[in-house]
Amino acid sequence: MTANNSDTPNKPKLRTVFFVSDATAITAETLANSVLAQFQGLQYTRYRMPFVNTEQKAREAALKINEIGKESGVRPLVFSTLVASSLTAAFNEYCNAFVIELFRSFVGPLERELGVPSDHSVGKSHEIGDQERYNKRIDAINYTLAHDDGQTNKGLGDADVILVGVSRSGKTPTSLYLAMQFGIKAANYPLIPEDFDRGELPPILEECKGKIFGLSIAPERLSQIRSERRPNSRYASIENCRYEVSESQKMMEREGIQYLSSTTKSIEEISATILQQLKINVDPMMSM
Amino acid sequence: MTANNSDTPNKPKLRTVFFVSDATAITAETLANSVLAQFQGLQYTRYRMPFVNTEQKAREAALKINEIGKESGVRPLVFSTLVASSLTAAFNEYCNAFVIELFRSFVGPLERELGVPSDHSVGKSHEIGDQERYNKRIDAINYTLAHDDGQTNKGLGDADVILVGVSRSGKTPTSLYLAMQFGIKAANYPLIPEDFDRGELPPILEECKGKIFGLSIAPERLSQIRSERRPNSRYASIENCRYEVSESQKMMEREGIQYLSSTTKSIEEISATILQQLKINVDPMMSM
Repeated sequence: MTANNSDTPNKPKLRTVFFVSDATAITAETLANSVLAQFQGLQYTRYRMPFVNTEQKAREAALKINEIGKESGVRPLVFSTLVASSLTAAFNEYCNAFVIELFRSFVGPLERELGVPSDHSVGKSHEIGDQERYNKRIDAINYTLAHDDGQTNKGLGDADVILVGVSRSGKTPTSLYLAMQFGIKAANYPLIPEDFDRGELPPILEECKGKIFGLSIAPERLSQIRSERRPNSRYASIENCRYEVSESQKMMEREGIQYLSSTTKSIEEISATILQQLKINVDPMMSM
Repeated sequence: MTANNSDTPNKPKLRTVFFVSDATAITAETLANSVLAQFQGLQYTRYRMPFVNTEQKAREAALKINEIGKESGVRPLVFSTLVASSLTAAFNEYCNAFVIELFRSFVGPLERELGVPSDHSVGKSHEIGDQERYNKRIDAINYTLAHDDGQTNKGLGDADVILVGVSRSGKTPTSLYLAMQFGIKAANYPLIPEDFDRGELPPILEECKGKIFGLSIAPERLSQIRSERRPNSRYASIENCRYEVSESQKMMEREGIQYLSSTTKSIEEISATILQQLKINVDPMMSM
């Protein structure tokens, strides 16, 4: 197989990309995706290579990359978070790829700025590290699961954020992302036709106004999502979706609840916006 | 307030760190945490500054950083994923911090290697981008929620991974992380005393052997976790935890199921290990 493509004769549009790390490779993957997203019109076959934490494994990783690169007919791209010089030396000696070392250029200047030597182990960031901080994150995930979809009002006062919106507007995945990524206790509460008939927020929410954020969604998109679950139902019909979305927006406006439309936004964008709007952007004095 | 500290007279141990981005700032935060985890003994107050996407906002962000830096008495650290030169110019003109620009050094060399100009917009990585890829991820989250804790056997054949282990061994947060981060459909299935009495895996799992991975845990830690939920119960007692852990390990060994101990591992480390062991490390030919 070769990845050459006729409309760009010299530069192939399908590239092979490797994420190489002495630990989980999650940082390397996140970074590489950010960098590569800036280049339009390319496609990638992506390989994760975690736990490259001995010289032997570094050599093996390099040889594997060379082999896959040879099959693809194009020089592979490597995004590496290796920092220890024994590992980078072993890796670079064998690897015939275009290698981007993501951290090496920052470590020296940071050592001088911080007045502390680096221990050259990138993997630390996804270790448990601070047990208290890690437990807080796991507690947030458990809290969010227990408070999904208005399952219980017990402990709603402990929430950092309460998401409201009609069924299937994106509350559940957003709540879980907030919990998992940021350690935020995110409850979510559905707005249902009974609430619109009554013309008021569910009473339990009245006490929590300051931490409520709303999600809305385009009725057409909502109808499409609901149809996957319950095709040809009144619940999924475009008329009903229009009604629910319109009523939920009126209610949020009347109650002074900030909201955004989830229609074209990822859970990451929604989450970052919520934290910004609710001013939960500081994570004070936690050690790493 | 000053953050100076007596045992390192010249270099303060508490530093203020800012994550600056034209989009969610999630990549900047992930990266910064990876880099900073290499430096022992420091503490950080962290501020997220997402959506710095106009020159005006870049100037305001810089001035805000200067102000907070002045209060702290120490030069702030900034991890920036800004790439557009209008934004970096506006930011750098005003900012009195130690700024690390995470991407700028890679973009030029990558443009040459890929033969495609960068559009200088880092934020893309957390936009929805490829709708099919994004939908796959959301579907994975919904699948995982529906197949948490053996709730249903329906569709278990569609799982990419099935985690097994005793109650509270870490299956739920790990499954959700696999779904959210990697778009992996991860079901999880509890091993319970009835399974140990019968001496066999739950029959439904026999058909799915190739994608089963086990979690174990130190009995002392398990007892501690269970006690938070049900203090002084037989369920949480150290004797029962010892029994369940020992029986579950025997069963996994007998059935040839790979497993690891979650006791001191983060959900990121567990997830990366599972993908590696089950050889789900390639994410082929998906466009970004």
